[in-house]
Amino acid sequence: MQDHVIIVAAGVGSRMNNALPKQFMPLAGKPVLQYSIEKFYRYNPQLNIVVVIHPEYIPFWNSQPRDIPHLVVEGGATRFESVLHGLASIAESNGIVGIHDAARPLVSLKTIETCYHGARAHGNAIPVIEHFDSLRKLDTTGSIPVDRAQYRIVQTPQCFELSTLREAYRQPYSPVFTDDASVWEAAGETLNLVPGNRENFKLTVPEDLRLAEALLLAYQ
Amino acid sequence: MQDHVIIVAAGVGSRMNNALPKQFMPLAGKPVLQYSIEKFYRYNPQLNIVVVIHPEYIPFWNSQPRDIPHLVVEGGATRFESVLHGLASIAESNGIVGIHDAARPLVSLKTIETCYHGARAHGNAIPVIEHFDSLRKLDTTGSIPVDRAQYRIVQTPQCFELSTLREAYRQPYSPVFTDDASVWEAAGETLNLVPGNRENFKLTVPEDLRLAEALLLAYQ
Repeated sequence: MQDHVIIVAAGVGSRMNNALPKQFMPLAGKPVLQYSIEKFYRYNPQLNIVVVIHPEYIPFWNSQPRDIPHLVVEGGATRFESVLHGLASIAESNGIVGIHDAARPLVSLKTIETCYHGARAHGNAIPVIEHFDSLRKLDTTGSIPVDRAQYRIVQTPQCFELSTLREAYRQPYSPVFTDDASVWEAAGETLNLVPGNRENFKLTVPEDLRLAEALLLAYQ
Repeated sequence: MQDHVIIVAAGVGSRMNNALPKQFMPLAGKPVLQYSIEKFYRYNPQLNIVVVIHPEYIPFWNSQPRDIPHLVVEGGATRFESVLHGLASIAESNGIVGIHDAARPLVSLKTIETCYHGARAHGNAIPVIEHFDSLRKLDTTGSIPVDRAQYRIVQTPQCFELSTLREAYRQPYSPVFTDDASVWEAAGETLNLVPGNRENFKLTVPEDLRLAEALLLAYQ
């Protein structure tokens, strides 16, 4: 059965203080987005790869060398809308679809395998990692310590049975939809948490590019 | 005025599956602990450096080359007790004392400066960083999404006015004392949160050594 990945690269990266959004910035000589494309292709060369890009940056992306076939789809005003555009581009009605943040170039092959296998067995799989540092929660008077053992850091690719995810995405947009797991859950589905990989962090601030380059050297 | 740092290296590292606790493992050719000693010395060569080590590992540590003067103190059964031993070794009654985890070799000079300066101005300074990944809290039925903007990841060195910290450490031990900030707070003091540095993570699992080596290459 045909499986899919929707790589969401539609942000405009305001937090990076840079003209080019983070997913297009050069990381050890290649755009950040290219790493995810290569990693999913390496997982399964038959995977249907869909990349969602803000219309303003499609010409830039199309001007880059393209060695791995993928479909480029126009992003929407929100992440939710961008995923909807990605889903609309998929003709099939079955299979597993992964939704991945382009700003996570360091996803491991093992995490990708775990998520697709988990979704095949349980309908969905959400990669998470444990928290090893102390955690405090801000409140009106300051902050309170919380038990880190009760928290999980959520990553991508979040993988789902395609037709059920399409159903979930029929809900109207809500600001609580920070990722696909929250959309899935709001539709009454339960989540299947699986292990992610610790270096699979989301590039957010400019220093993160240096961090990602260091990690690439160590892990690739 | 004389300032101090107590570097807590008293753990036995059960999570590392390794005979040698993580703070003594070689990181790019030097024991992990050595990095913290060097960084605090670089911040202030007059700093009184106290290192707390489990009695079983003191002979090992004493067999290592020692270029930066520091006092070695025996660790206790808990982190709380180890810090108490460190405090007891300090003859002075004033100044700022930083308490630092030896398993955080990547603390930046800027974080150290920020913490000592913050403690001088406000009595204490606790380095924290923001959370950029989605966060879920486990509960009895599964997990719920929480607002990551309300959370801070807590690091070290946690810096305090020495005499007030001594007072706080007169409290009986409680299992909620996961760090010095929690001891300080339980004594009725308020916390002053200041910015840490993102690569200043705590080595916890074996893969973390590889991560730390990559970060050293990028940040040192």
